[in-house]
Amino acid sequence: MAALGVRARIGAVGRGLPSRFCIALNELLPVGPRRLISTFFKASDLQVELNKDPKPKPEAASLSFGKHFTDHMLTVEWGREQGWGQPHIKPFQNLSLHPASSALHYAVEIFEGLKAYRGVDQRVRLFRPLLNMERMSRSAARACLPPFDQRELLECICQLITLDQDWVPNLDNTSLYIRPTFIGTESSLGVARPGHALLFVILSPVGSYFAAGPMGPVELLAEPRYVRAWVGGVGDFKMGGNYAPTILVQDEAMRAGCQQALWLYGDDHQITEVGTMNIFLFWTDEQGDLELVTPPLNGLILPGVTRQSLLDLGRKWGEFKVSERNVTMADLVRGLQEKRVREVFGSGTACVVCPVSHILYQGQGYPIPTMENGPELAMRFLKALMDIQYGRVPSDWVLPV
Amino acid sequence: MAALGVRARIGAVGRGLPSRFCIALNELLPVGPRRLISTFFKASDLQVELNKDPKPKPEAASLSFGKHFTDHMLTVEWGREQGWGQPHIKPFQNLSLHPASSALHYAVEIFEGLKAYRGVDQRVRLFRPLLNMERMSRSAARACLPPFDQRELLECICQLITLDQDWVPNLDNTSLYIRPTFIGTESSLGVARPGHALLFVILSPVGSYFAAGPMGPVELLAEPRYVRAWVGGVGDFKMGGNYAPTILVQDEAMRAGCQQALWLYGDDHQITEVGTMNIFLFWTDEQGDLELVTPPLNGLILPGVTRQSLLDLGRKWGEFKVSERNVTMADLVRGLQEKRVREVFGSGTACVVCPVSHILYQGQGYPIPTMENGPELAMRFLKALMDIQYGRVPSDWVLPV
Repeated sequence: MAALGVRARIGAVGRGLPSRFCIALNELLPVGPRRLISTFFKASDLQVELNKDPKPKPEAASLSFGKHFTDHMLTVEWGREQGWGQPHIKPFQNLSLHPASSALHYAVEIFEGLKAYRGVDQRVRLFRPLLNMERMSRSAARACLPPFDQRELLECICQLITLDQDWVPNLDNTSLYIRPTFIGTESSLGVARPGHALLFVILSPVGSYFAAGPMGPVELLAEPRYVRAWVGGVGDFKMGGNYAPTILVQDEAMRAGCQQALWLYGDDHQITEVGTMNIFLFWTDEQGDLELVTPPLNGLILPGVTRQSLLDLGRKWGEFKVSERNVTMADLVRGLQEKRVREVFGSGTACVVCPVSHILYQGQGYPIPTMENGPELAMRFLKALMDIQYGRVPSDWVLPV
Repeated sequence: MAALGVRARIGAVGRGLPSRFCIALNELLPVGPRRLISTFFKASDLQVELNKDPKPKPEAASLSFGKHFTDHMLTVEWGREQGWGQPHIKPFQNLSLHPASSALHYAVEIFEGLKAYRGVDQRVRLFRPLLNMERMSRSAARACLPPFDQRELLECICQLITLDQDWVPNLDNTSLYIRPTFIGTESSLGVARPGHALLFVILSPVGSYFAAGPMGPVELLAEPRYVRAWVGGVGDFKMGGNYAPTILVQDEAMRAGCQQALWLYGDDHQITEVGTMNIFLFWTDEQGDLELVTPPLNGLILPGVTRQSLLDLGRKWGEFKVSERNVTMADLVRGLQEKRVREVFGSGTACVVCPVSHILYQGQGYPIPTMENGPELAMRFLKALMDIQYGRVPSDWVLPV
């Protein structure tokens, strides 16, 4: 087990989030007596049942994304009357769910995705995990799932990883993907705040998200007929319901010879996200300045941890303008015609940084010179992040497990 | 068991749906070899395991909505390689789901809601069930769940109801609510078309959806900050992800002293739906004509079976204009000021017809004279539907089980 409690270890990375991460949280939390009943669960109450039949571990070199799972999982139950139960680490196993569970009918479900990396010193590190815990709290509140203590959940996750630490693969571009999930288990068909819920965490050793591997470029279908998120909706929360509608569009992208969808919004076809990633454009802007730009957190955009990290790195380097502002397809097409575009790439926990080589839009293909330009910035970002994640460069962005 | 096969019994109600129900289905179905593998499941292959420990049945007079479940359930599994398995009727029980199931993470889940009624002649009848089967097919295709034979599923449901027929309550305003559910059970974390899925059906004896009982009026909060569905989204499909985001808004409505949300859309605050119901306005329109109006099926609106039935009845009666067109809050407020509004009501399988007595909009309360006007039309609709549903009036809208 970890030698230090997570509160002590978290100290260094416990800096506040940008306020836009938290803006709606107080507003979203339920009011009244419910808060008093829900005493938060505590890592010190963890009940551990060891798996007596551990599985063979897959080869690190052959790992894909999210297909293998480790020997243990974390579960914590919540009920309106009894509040939070004790957290349990137990052998990885199927969940037994009432067939009326609100997660299965009304998508009362949220999740997170973060990674643990085995460093060059063999230590295992989490990357900015409190950003995920904060976002998970916000998502839970929006989905009417009960509040929890973020640091206690993080400590439980650290103990789960410690137990399954041999599953953290030891190879560049591999990691242990951590999937906290929180679902409504209310066994009644009324559409209402669930009276029962289950928080669980599973771990999956992973390689590259895309078959092409790291820095394999993707081609995008920009199809304005499909809209991922909208003002007044929940596109800025990690709720399950944001994902199912994208699968058909992803399939349509594949049939069009692309790998991902580029999500547009509004009559002016604003660029918003790409597949399950945030999107970045590195170009010379209309004023002639070198600019890294990504859409702003205006309610349509998932506040990605990798997105935030690229913005933070870009601003720290101070070598080019870093902007959060809307860019339309017309802006991008003009930039391409005027040869001002250097790189377009997605960012996300699963892929880290993912170059874009081509966009298919309104029947026309637009080659993007990302790979021809290195991609210099995308590779620099990837290296900077990997140096931190794999412990080659010390940083207060990592939490040793 | 039913004496006649469902294909024979369905004959009379098997008339085609309005084409707008089906418009996108061919487009949504997967193409290529997958279709060949998925031989549809058949009711004649049903495997039945009887529940040896039946539960006591609740009092019909004390039933609420969706809290009790019958002794049996239907399950059918599907896999990309093996296609559809045999349908099973088995004792009602928890589902055993892999913790990575795509229903729990990405809301790959759709559902339907329909009812079986015990008639005055003690026969059990379904109300326009093929409309639900058609809509379920469309929802499944949109959620990238595999196609199935609608009539075979309906026959399986009839056999399930026949087995649990003693659970169909024998009292006006009660019925057996049928909840077909279809979920992705892919045990991998990639966001992709599921390779495994589970279709299941559960049954719940129900009373009134709202605590106020049938024809108890509801008050609505019209809050433009929250948007239920949008053009390019999936608001016209019965996907789970459409529902979780509404619960917080429903709570906000309750805190404002209302029972339901009135969903608006666009800068002009178009009226779209109410809570989980379609909405109808009965008034004298701007031209001085008596008009029943509901928003059109423009991609934002769930194509409700009760909605369709009210439109069909209204057109058959031919006593007033029946329109599917957009109405804005400004139109409604003007109609109220000019005393042209007679009734506003919601329609849905759960509540059938639900009068609206009050709308809270931009800080101002607008009394709606629905109850003062009878509500004449809402009650006439309710009586016409109940006469059909409870077998007092013969109709090709019902399917005897």
